[in-house]
Parts: sequence; C-alpha cells; structure tokens
Amino acid sequence: MTNFIRNAWYAACWSNELEREPQAKTILGEYLALFRTETGVAAAVEDCCPHRFAPMSLGSVEGENIVCGYHGMQFDCAGVCVDIPGQKNIPGRTKIRAYPVVEKHKLVWVWTGDPKRVDEGLIPDLRWLDNPDWRSVTGTTRYGCNWVLLVDNLLDLTHTTFVHQSTIGTEDVANTPVTSERTGDIVTVTRIMKDTEPSNFYKRVGGFEGKIDRWQKIWLDPPSTVIIDAGGVPAGTNDKYRGIDTRIISILKPVDDSTVDQIWAFARDTCLDDADLDADIEKSIIHTFNEDIEFLAGQQRNMEKRPERKMLNNTADSGVVQARRVIDEWLVADMAPARSDTSAPAPAE
Amino acid sequence: MTNFIRNAWYAACWSNELEREPQAKTILGEYLALFRTETGVAAAVEDCCPHRFAPMSLGSVEGENIVCGYHGMQFDCAGVCVDIPGQKNIPGRTKIRAYPVVEKHKLVWVWTGDPKRVDEGLIPDLRWLDNPDWRSVTGTTRYGCNWVLLVDNLLDLTHTTFVHQSTIGTEDVANTPVTSERTGDIVTVTRIMKDTEPSNFYKRVGGFEGKIDRWQKIWLDPPSTVIIDAGGVPAGTNDKYRGIDTRIISILKPVDDSTVDQIWAFARDTCLDDADLDADIEKSIIHTFNEDIEFLAGQQRNMEKRPERKMLNNTADSGVVQARRVIDEWLVADMAPARSDTSAPAPAE
Amino acid sequence: MTNFIRNAWYAACWSNELEREPQAKTILGEYLALFRTETGVAAAVEDCCPHRFAPMSLGSVEGENIVCGYHGMQFDCAGVCVDIPGQKNIPGRTKIRAYPVVEKHKLVWVWTGDPKRVDEGLIPDLRWLDNPDWRSVTGTTRYGCNWVLLVDNLLDLTHTTFVHQSTIGTEDVANTPVTSERTGDIVTVTRIMKDTEPSNFYKRVGGFEGKIDRWQKIWLDPPSTVIIDAGGVPAGTNDKYRGIDTRIISILKPVDDSTVDQIWAFARDTCLDDADLDADIEKSIIHTFNEDIEFLAGQQRNMEKRPERKMLNNTADSGVVQARRVIDEWLVADMAPARSDTSAPAPAE
Repeated sequence: MTNFIRNAWYAACWSNELEREPQAKTILGEYLALFRTETGVAAAVEDCCPHRFAPMSLGSVEGENIVCGYHGMQFDCAGVCVDIPGQKNIPGRTKIRAYPVVEKHKLVWVWTGDPKRVDEGLIPDLRWLDNPDWRSVTGTTRYGCNWVLLVDNLLDLTHTTFVHQSTIGTEDVANTPVTSERTGDIVTVTRIMKDTEPSNFYKRVGGFEGKIDRWQKIWLDPPSTVIIDAGGVPAGTNDKYRGIDTRIISILKPVDDSTVDQIWAFARDTCLDDADLDADIEKSIIHTFNEDIEFLAGQQRNMEKRPERKMLNNTADSGVVQARRVIDEWLVADMAPARSDTSAPAPAE
Repeated sequence: MTNFIRNAWYAACWSNELEREPQAKTILGEYLALFRTETGVAAAVEDCCPHRFAPMSLGSVEGENIVCGYHGMQFDCAGVCVDIPGQKNIPGRTKIRAYPVVEKHKLVWVWTGDPKRVDEGLIPDLRWLDNPDWRSVTGTTRYGCNWVLLVDNLLDLTHTTFVHQSTIGTEDVANTPVTSERTGDIVTVTRIMKDTEPSNFYKRVGGFEGKIDRWQKIWLDPPSTVIIDAGGVPAGTNDKYRGIDTRIISILKPVDDSTVDQIWAFARDTCLDDADLDADIEKSIIHTFNEDIEFLAGQQRNMEKRPERKMLNNTADSGVVQARRVIDEWLVADMAPARSDTSAPAPAE
Repeated sequence: MTNFIRNAWYAACWSNELEREPQAKTILGEYLALFRTETGVAAAVEDCCPHRFAPMSLGSVEGENIVCGYHGMQFDCAGVCVDIPGQKNIPGRTKIRAYPVVEKHKLVWVWTGDPKRVDEGLIPDLRWLDNPDWRSVTGTTRYGCNWVLLVDNLLDLTHTTFVHQSTIGTEDVANTPVTSERTGDIVTVTRIMKDTEPSNFYKRVGGFEGKIDRWQKIWLDPPSTVIIDAGGVPAGTNDKYRGIDTRIISILKPVDDSTVDQIWAFARDTCLDDADLDADIEKSIIHTFNEDIEFLAGQQRNMEKRPERKMLNNTADSGVVQARRVIDEWLVADMAPARSDTSAPAPAE
C-alpha cells in the first residue's frame, strides 16, 4: 500500500537539529540529503549524485553549495552543478534534484511534490511553537506502520483508556461519546467529560485534588498534522487559571510504506520556566507514545497479511472515518495534473 | 512452497505453558492469540481485532472473554463480540475468528482447518505423556526449515551416525538396513541392530558395559507427529529390566514455510524419580537436536535456491518416500471440499 | 541486475586459507564447498548434496573425497559418488557438480562456467605474487555492492582526493587529467603528476621530504582483476632507488548481485624484510578500503531504487566507460554458445 500525498510539505526535522553537515533523511520513500549552507540556509537535494549515484549525505558543504564526497561534484541549493573537478566545461544539463525547503515554526519543511505547485500557505498553522507565551517539550518517535494508522491513533483517543491507563487514560475517556465534524478539509473530533476523574498525568502536572471538567479537541490538518487541544479545570469552576491547557502537536513524516516518524511537541501556556516539569512531561510523553509502538506495528503486520480485508468502524470512529475520506480525496487530487500545468508559468522558487 | 495441511490438529504449546495472559503463536503462517479464561478454558482467536487490526495477544482476559488492548472490544471464546466500549448496540456480524482448541496429553491442540470438519479423534495417541508409569522430559526446538524436512530427519535415523556421533549415533546405525511399511496412513520404519556397540548416550543413561541388542521403530502419525520407539538390552539377553526403553515424541508445528517448531518429549519407563537423569537427558537431547539445526537450515536454503530440483532417494529412504506419499495424499484431501459441505449439518462446536 | 560473467576464473581465497576442512563460499550467487584433500589437492563441489540437499560444507574430507555430514554420501573431486552408507549399488547417475579448481599465484581459482571452456591461460598474470623480489601484504574486503561498482572505483582514482584525503589522496589527483586506452580487452588508465605533494601515506612509507613525481597506471584484466601500478620518485630525479614502486592487485569475487569480495595484495619491491612496514601498510590499506564501503553501498542502494536511471560520465570517466564496454562485450560472449559445442571434443579436465 503506497498512499503518499506528494504535493505537500513535510517536516524533515526540527530547525535546531540541522547543522552544516549533510544528513540523510527518507521521506515518502525518497532519499534526501539535508544540509545548511554557510549563510544558514536550509536546503535539500536528492541523496544521489547524478555522476556515480553516491549519497550526497556523505559529502560536505562548501559556501552555499553541497559537494559530493566521492568525486567532488558540486551543486548549489537549486541543484545546478557548479563544479566538476578536473573538468572545465560543465554540461548545461548537469543537475541534481533539489527540494523546496522552508523553515517555519522552528521546523524544516520539505516540499516533496511538483515544484510548480509549491505554496508556503499550505504549511500548517502551528502558532504555539512560536508564541513566547507557550513553552514546548519536543521529540520524535518512530513507528513501524503506515502513516495513516498513526493519524487514526491520534484522532481516536478512546485507546488511551486501554493503552495508556498509567498516564493519560481514564475509564471515562472510552465511555464518553465523541462528536466529529468536517470544516473544509479540517476534521475535528471533540470529547467533553464533565465531573470526571483526572488521569494520573493530569493529577501530577495539574495538581488536581478532586474531579475535573476535561476536554479533548483534536483536528487533522491534512495531510498529516494532528493537533490535540486538551485540558481540564476543577469540576464546575470553568477556571482556566486553576486548570491545565495543552496542545499536543504531531507532524507526521511518512518514511516509507511501513514506517512513520511522529515529530511531536507538547505545548503549555503555564509554568514556562519550570525545567523539572519539562523533564517530567518529556518522560511521560515518551513513555506514552512508546506504549503505542507495538500496537501500531501489529496493525501493520495484520494489514500486510490480508491487504484486501476492511477494518470495522465503531461509533467512536466517526472522526477517523471522516479523516480517511479527506485523505482519500487528497490522494486523488495529488495524482491529478496541476492546474498550472496548462496555463500558468512555473512559480519562481 | 506452501505445503500446509490445514484440516488437522497442531500442538500450540504444552498445557502448563498457557496461562491467563494472551500469547501470540504463529501456526501454518496464521497469527493466533492463545489464552486461558478465568475458569481455565484454553482458547484461541485470530491475532487481529476486526476493529482496527490490533493484535489480540496484546490484550487481556476478563472472565471468559478476551479484550482487545487497543480500544477494548471484547469477544467470547467462540469469537462473538460481547462489548464495544462507548457503544450500546453490537452489530450481529461482529465476530473474530475463533479456533477450536482441545487440551489432551498435556498439550494445547488447535484445529486450523474448517470448523465443520473438527474431529477430536484425529489427535494422535500419545499415551506415554499421561501414563504415570512413564516420565517425560519435554521441550521445544525451532528449525529454520519447512516442516517436511524435519519429518524426513526424524524418520531416517541414518543421519545420527554422522550428525550425532557424540551422543546417539554409532557406525552400525548407518550400516544397518531398515524396513519400512505403511499401515493405513501410518508409516513405520524399523531398524534392528543385534550385538552392537551402544552409543555414548546409551552407555551413560543405560549403564551398558558390553554390546547390546538395539532397536529403533519410528512412525509418522500424519500430518506431523513422529514417534520413535527406541531402546536396547544387553546383547542376547532380551532382558528389558536391564535395558533401556524410550519414546521420543515429536509433535511438529509448522510456523511458516521455512520455520517449524518441534515440540518434543523424551519419555522413559524407568528411574521415574531420578531428577539428575532428567537434567542429563534434557541436556543431551537439546544438544542433539541443536546439531541438526544447521543441516536443516542448509537444506532449506538449497531447496529455495532451486525449487524445481528433485532430491535423490537412497535405499535407506524407503520410509521417507512412503511418508512423503502419505503427506502428498493428505495435501490433496485437505484441499478437497469436506463431505459434510454437501449433505451433513455442521457439527456443534 | 545480474551481470555475472560465468566462463571465467574467480579467486575463491588465498591458498593458505584453504585447509582440509570444507568451507562454504558463495561465488556469482552459487553456493560452493571448497576443500583440500589428504594429498593437498584443492577442490570445489556444489554446496548441496544431491541426496537431501544438505550443505557439503558441513561435511568432512576422507582421503581424496568429500563426505556429506548428514547421511555420509561420498564424492570424489570430479563429483562422482563413491559411497552410499548402507547401500551396495551406486546408481551411475549419482553425481554432484564439481568445479574446476587451479592454484596459481598463491590463490585458489574456481571456474564457474561451462567445463568444456576451461582454459588455464585465462587466469590473470599476477607475477608479483610469486616473485621473490617482491613482498605482499594481503587481505580481503567485502563491499555491499555489485562488482562493477568496485571496478569503477579502482579504475578511477579521482575519488582518492575526496574519500581518502587522510591516506593516499591529494588535491592534485583529482585535478590531473587521465589518459585511457584499450589494448585488446585490457583497459589502462594513466595519470602522471609531476612535481606534486606526496600523500600522507607516501610521506610515511616513502620517507619523502619534498615534492615528488608520481604515477598511477591502472588496468582491468577482465572480467574482474584490477592492477594498480603506483609510485613516486623525488621530483625531477627519476631515481627509482629513492622512490616507491607498488602494485595494488585486486581480484574481485562477485558474491551475489549486491555483494563483492575484493581479494587484495599490496606488493612492493623494497624493504622486503620490514615487518613493521608490513603492519603499517596493512593498517593503512584496510583503513583506506573501509572508507569506500559506505560510498559503494550507497551507490548500490541508489541503483536499486531507480534501476532504469543512467549514470553521468565525466571527463575523468573515460577509462571507466571503456572498461564497462569491455565488460558488456564479455557478458554477451558469455551467453553465446561455446565454439567447442559444435566441433571440438570436450577438453580433458
């Protein structure tokens, strides 16, 4: 099953993880070499020198160019060959595929599709990552499954009752029905739990002593960003100052058909200077996501075993079903020719 | 090469290895979750929840049911869904495949075929495992080969002369011709060695000082149980009280095309309380079976390399040839429609 | 991509690595068992007993024969079965494939093609390995790539400037143009560097203090032997006594489509008794070849990803291009019927 939407932005890594040294990344089954030039520009080329197919990620950066480490061919960030050692004439056709790259919200975004369709406006809105009133703990978790299974997982928090009993799950999550709606291509799933027992994680982080009113509002910003707006306040108080308000942001990077990286941020708007809390959150979040790993790998194994079999949708899956429908629509649109192919000039890159 | 006989019982594990906690087993390439209910009933379902395909083996047992660990769907031992968290109505079609399971001879047997053909009478007769006058050392050994290669191995003990020189093999084994016969679908291979040197293992376990009269009578109870009746007495005495009499029982569980588990028992009718002897036998048997592992993996590698090539049969292979013929007949019968499909009602399960 | 030239000699190992004990070797994707008989004759058979397909490499040598370790079948070096335990009559057709083997230049050579085409004259001339005026450090390095990528690598030393900066590379290598020529089927690439900085390795081994005149003359003896005649003398002196003269001989053994063993010798005609120098050379050479491993594995990965894509040839690749042409011609000739098939009698083996 290859279900990649190519005309889209994918976060390759956090901005602070990309230094001068080229590094190999696999996105949508393609091999890329990411690097940062001397002036600090983030760039990406195919991880394959057109000369003898050596990986560019084994090379180095010189000025604004990347140099193949095998025979020294040099390319600029647009992929144009600017030097061939021992050879004066560079044939005009000598190029390497360059990927459009943008840094935004502290992430390095790569456009994997048709360069003529590039549109920075398609990068999802992750304002909490830039807002100084919010603080984020960040990380990356890898799952051995197709990326859509992870979208399912994040949209349907029913599973927290069973998989994450020790951290974020409570009985009431599974027992409380959700509502879901689609606005444009954004699918939102909402679950409101009034007068409910706080989870262990909420008790520890929020310091709640009694019951709380708790909410989970989750939306898929397609193709692959899922944002969870989750929090709680002391039951009946509606008092956000005594509550907890968080955004768990997951930007999914499909690596190949059966591997996906979840680049995640846990953002909060309180206790901004509490480093102990940071450490506590990081530990809990990593523990929680790790609990999902074997379930998702097992789903993948079972899907591969019987590719023709259809999953069963329960009532709680309404959001998942709508999200899958959006993804299917995007897949169809992704394969259609770009409107600009016939009339508009190629956008400057 | 897929050569699985599905309408048959396979031992999944020893009864004492199955506790409440669900465990994953692969049999004939199928993924199963085995578990024991609160009242002690052994049961098996497909290791794939129909909801989102999570492995049921990651779930838990509640009462007489198994609960999916991902979103909490609950199924009884017949595979009928009895609970969906957060949902009142359970659609009638909501089922998971359940496998008929029987415990007999201290083993957990799973029927992998058509439930309408289930017949407990097809479980092989392994009376030595229940008889209090016999004592067994048991274990499981995994081989990286198709299950039929292990049937060959166990039926033709000629190989013990070469592979197991240090334990059970002697020169005379390879040099003594065998007789083989087929009675119904049972193929039996017999080798009688008069006035022969005991093997190292026989010397140690049987305490023989001089030559012995030794026998090996091996039969395949198809599809995949091989029983070796082996022993010896001081040469010319015919005195079983001064001899050694054993049954080496191998119940083969094909895992996939190139993996087979040998669930084995070494049963004896003497020294029933000798724990040191148990330990000695266990060590020797494991050592012996381990010597076969690289041979069988090598055969498998060579078979996969040239699937069209035929093996050469020597005189000593008469039993192996007959056994292969029975297996081929069973394979044909396995694929034929059940007689009950046309006329008889499905048996109650 | 399978691009094996079968009608050729391949070095299986160094002569001193082959003892009595059979050992498994994979050459051109075929499994072989190599062994040395009691009288010291090197021999090779298919690593698959015709009886039950057990690997012959798990067997043993008895006299001039190899014995299968599973059921004891015995074959002579020509592959004829000479014993079947427990069986008097050996059917005439009972054979195992035997490979022609010759020991020459301290190497064990195996002919993988049609036995009727065997020609010892096709073994490459590696006189330095036998000449007492030369001393060799030898070894074997395995690469995860098709053998032709390693031919490319050895013929085009431009890469030493980039990959091997710390040992044998200097700026001038990449900047100095090469000449290449084909004589018969031998392709030779020559690079002359006058008044150039010595590499770190040359400084250490040759003891040069100033600039040198340096040469690299490389030829492919098809299908897969590459010889590098490399050295240097103090600039302008033409004085070989104060210089360094070496042959780096690489005999490539294609293991499978994406694995190749480089059996290498670094031969020199000076300091024949300097064991410290031996150790120094060994360390440097292994370090140098290891630097290539990830480049070649990366090329292989990229080739497999896009099998239809063509490599770009730069000016420095003229020798590589000619060598590939020779290899392609040999591939075509390899598949043509042998001339002897129609008229000449099969050569005695």
